[in-house]
Amino acid sequence: MNTVPVWSVDARSGAPAVRVTVETATDAVDRAVRAAQIALPALADRRARAALLRAAAERLEARGPELIAAADRETALGTPRLTGELARAAYQFRAFADAVDEGAFLDVVIDHADPQAAPAPRPDLRRWKVPLGVVAVFAASNFPFAFSVPGGDTASALAAGCPVVAKAHPDHPQTSELAAEALREAAESVGLPAAVLALVHGRQAGVDLVQHPLIAAAGFTGSIPGGRALYDLAAARPVPIPFHGELGSLNPVVVTERAADARAEEIGSGLGGSFTLGMGQFCTKPGLVLVPAGAAGDRLEQALAAAAGQAPAGALLDARMRAGFLEGFAERAALPGVDTPVAAGEQRAEGLEQGVRPGYLSLPAALLAQPEYRPLLEECFGPVTVVARYQGPDEVAAVLARLGGNLTATLHAEPDEPDAAALLERLTPLAGRILFGGWPTGVAVAPAMHHGGPYPATTGTGTSVGGTAVDRWLRPVVYQNTPQQLLPPELHDANPLGIPRRLDGALQR
Amino acid sequence: MNTVPVWSVDARSGAPAVRVTVETATDAVDRAVRAAQIALPALADRRARAALLRAAAERLEARGPELIAAADRETALGTPRLTGELARAAYQFRAFADAVDEGAFLDVVIDHADPQAAPAPRPDLRRWKVPLGVVAVFAASNFPFAFSVPGGDTASALAAGCPVVAKAHPDHPQTSELAAEALREAAESVGLPAAVLALVHGRQAGVDLVQHPLIAAAGFTGSIPGGRALYDLAAARPVPIPFHGELGSLNPVVVTERAADARAEEIGSGLGGSFTLGMGQFCTKPGLVLVPAGAAGDRLEQALAAAAGQAPAGALLDARMRAGFLEGFAERAALPGVDTPVAAGEQRAEGLEQGVRPGYLSLPAALLAQPEYRPLLEECFGPVTVVARYQGPDEVAAVLARLGGNLTATLHAEPDEPDAAALLERLTPLAGRILFGGWPTGVAVAPAMHHGGPYPATTGTGTSVGGTAVDRWLRPVVYQNTPQQLLPPELHDANPLGIPRRLDGALQR
Repeated sequence: MNTVPVWSVDARSGAPAVRVTVETATDAVDRAVRAAQIALPALADRRARAALLRAAAERLEARGPELIAAADRETALGTPRLTGELARAAYQFRAFADAVDEGAFLDVVIDHADPQAAPAPRPDLRRWKVPLGVVAVFAASNFPFAFSVPGGDTASALAAGCPVVAKAHPDHPQTSELAAEALREAAESVGLPAAVLALVHGRQAGVDLVQHPLIAAAGFTGSIPGGRALYDLAAARPVPIPFHGELGSLNPVVVTERAADARAEEIGSGLGGSFTLGMGQFCTKPGLVLVPAGAAGDRLEQALAAAAGQAPAGALLDARMRAGFLEGFAERAALPGVDTPVAAGEQRAEGLEQGVRPGYLSLPAALLAQPEYRPLLEECFGPVTVVARYQGPDEVAAVLARLGGNLTATLHAEPDEPDAAALLERLTPLAGRILFGGWPTGVAVAPAMHHGGPYPATTGTGTSVGGTAVDRWLRPVVYQNTPQQLLPPELHDANPLGIPRRLDGALQR
Repeated sequence: MNTVPVWSVDARSGAPAVRVTVETATDAVDRAVRAAQIALPALADRRARAALLRAAAERLEARGPELIAAADRETALGTPRLTGELARAAYQFRAFADAVDEGAFLDVVIDHADPQAAPAPRPDLRRWKVPLGVVAVFAASNFPFAFSVPGGDTASALAAGCPVVAKAHPDHPQTSELAAEALREAAESVGLPAAVLALVHGRQAGVDLVQHPLIAAAGFTGSIPGGRALYDLAAARPVPIPFHGELGSLNPVVVTERAADARAEEIGSGLGGSFTLGMGQFCTKPGLVLVPAGAAGDRLEQALAAAAGQAPAGALLDARMRAGFLEGFAERAALPGVDTPVAAGEQRAEGLEQGVRPGYLSLPAALLAQPEYRPLLEECFGPVTVVARYQGPDEVAAVLARLGGNLTATLHAEPDEPDAAALLERLTPLAGRILFGGWPTGVAVAPAMHHGGPYPATTGTGTSVGGTAVDRWLRPVVYQNTPQQLLPPELHDANPLGIPRRLDGALQR
């Protein structure tokens, strides 16, 4: 029996505050997965799923003060931010409830039999999508609601009809327990088994989960090393499973000469606000900004330095991330030719024993062609960004050619610039979301949102935010020549539930 | 330089007939992939893609006699079957051309900016799908057109806008060369670079392909060992890629007591026709048939034995498969309690030095619970099926619980049987296509078709046949707050091309 304690740690002081539970032993993980598998048929009813999702939103809101207090202590992200994040999580559950009611994601396609069809007679075919099975959700540290137990992976998996076994992030076990409790209460309140949502703790529990024969898919948000290790385990199973991991992203930004000329101060201060938001702990933090050499770029940097210098100090999520941030900044700052106009560093105070202050780095873009500058092209988690000053379009292209995949890529340009469309085309292969102006931090929950991108941004082509996030947890099944009365109403000709579908080739909405 | 010859072998006699080329060396694979990557932007124009697909259909038809003659010599599948298969391949190209014109697979979703949106202001978001990049297609042996160079993987990848580098199956290199030539001619005839389709030969060339940094995804149809080895390589890359493999399938069939009572002879002779079709070399061959014990089941077996006994002898695709089939049959037949009412075996004749005759095995279903009978629950490629006689529903359930994933599962029942719906529900987790009556051999090219299933049927949730096959080669990208004039017309408010889309939450078709 596992008796390794799980502590809730005060992020600001670094002190263990509450002993929440113990790490989940292998046999307990097994029991949770089996109970979830038994609950699978209960989620087949779409009305029950929609009710569950709406009840989850209500329970999260009802228990908001308690959840936010725990999360603030465990993450130091602050009450205003956490209040907004919880509202976003509740909204997301309701948005998926609406999607469940609509039923478009079932992707119903019906072809009637056609004995005269070319090149061969065609049987009656009725296709839709069914849940994959029990989904493992690996919670992230940096969004204790939106990308954790009650986040997009959980909400979209439940919307798809998949029970969830969530692996808590060790940075906020108490918040995770409270959120899981709220979701299990929600299930029971609508007559579903509480086992549609289980919570496990500990690194080994995560390994056990991704290797469990009844786990049909996994969602993950976290670091490249952790995510890749779990991805590799998922791929190496006797029966491999889809592993939808969000691993890391640099989120490059390109500022054209004309944009810098027109809006140097606005862009510089906007960047300062974006890279320090949430103490730089957004997956979408702009981590590399290509700024023209010359006077306009200098003005941009001045505004950036002012904003970054005024940004408040704060605690990072945990001591390991704090150490990684300070070392990462120092390692990059030590490279020849790299300036530190605003230096990051430790900043302690009473009640903020774990504090750091933001900083940024600046260097000539041409240096990034050298292999030893590679770390500047990789994510450094925390409130730091890198400004690379370029001499012309060729240097921009050379840097972009060296980048891996990203969640976002941002272009600051004037709409009438002759090169703007070409620059967008060059950024498109690099990311899943391309911004024209603005900043990538902040991911709207909306039907069109895509939060994912080429590896290592994500390990697949799916999204964890937005209307299509549910697609990751489904697989198609087609019924051939099957009497309608033996099939669910979604596949009947009469379409009693009004499901959007394709019928004999034509889209019907 | 690689000088290993690639021989075209006469499948009936086993004699090498023509030296087609040499195996493709690593540097030549690299050149083919780079040329394909350079051709990628040329496929961005959907009108050009649709024209390419239609020209491909025309060229395949125009060169039909030559293609069919080569394929018949290399595969021994016979002119009638190959004529139909080529017509199917041409039809498939045209069906994907229509899908390209329609544009529904672009999955366009547009959300206008809403500064008042809850829980947070929403930016303008315009999402669609873009091609992943160069796709590697690993051709199958058993369908020299439909699942080979001019098959569903190639057609769907080109439809998605992805250039293809195909790895020829060594059983029909000459047919593959001719088909590749036809496709390259088609590209040039519509003003596209021939490099949108390249062909490579040899096992190492396949390994080189799946490991090439510019290969963005792969499609595969073949065996479990070969497919799993390539899947593992794809997953182990520094940047993993989607590997859509179709690996193996038993395709179970359940015949209820009442169906056997009502239609014993029809079902028995239908089964005999299905498992011997194409010398049993269909991915969807019914390999395990649950038949009730008792008189009706006996009549079914008599009809099956008659049909199987009359089925003509023929050559399998190659000597290795022939040996595997004969050994597989003998190994299964040697198990205690397994009868061989019709014994498979060698059958040689002038011009058919490589011939075999079909056979089937029969045993009590209860034996399948024992571990040594495991081979009977695994695919044996070639004209063999296994009849398992069951005593009641519990024995059916016990056998089904021991099965892996399948492309198909078939139920022979009466529509008014009280258990029919429950049996369909039990079969659904086992396969991607569920048939009520009929036989799984033959896969209609239709919008609703799904040809895929739980592992090892396929390594993902995609299909290689049907309207949704194109989805495997695309990834979503969303543009945020981007002026419309900088975006492709598919993402404009005005929708000049009439693309089906979701606009501000509402589906528009």
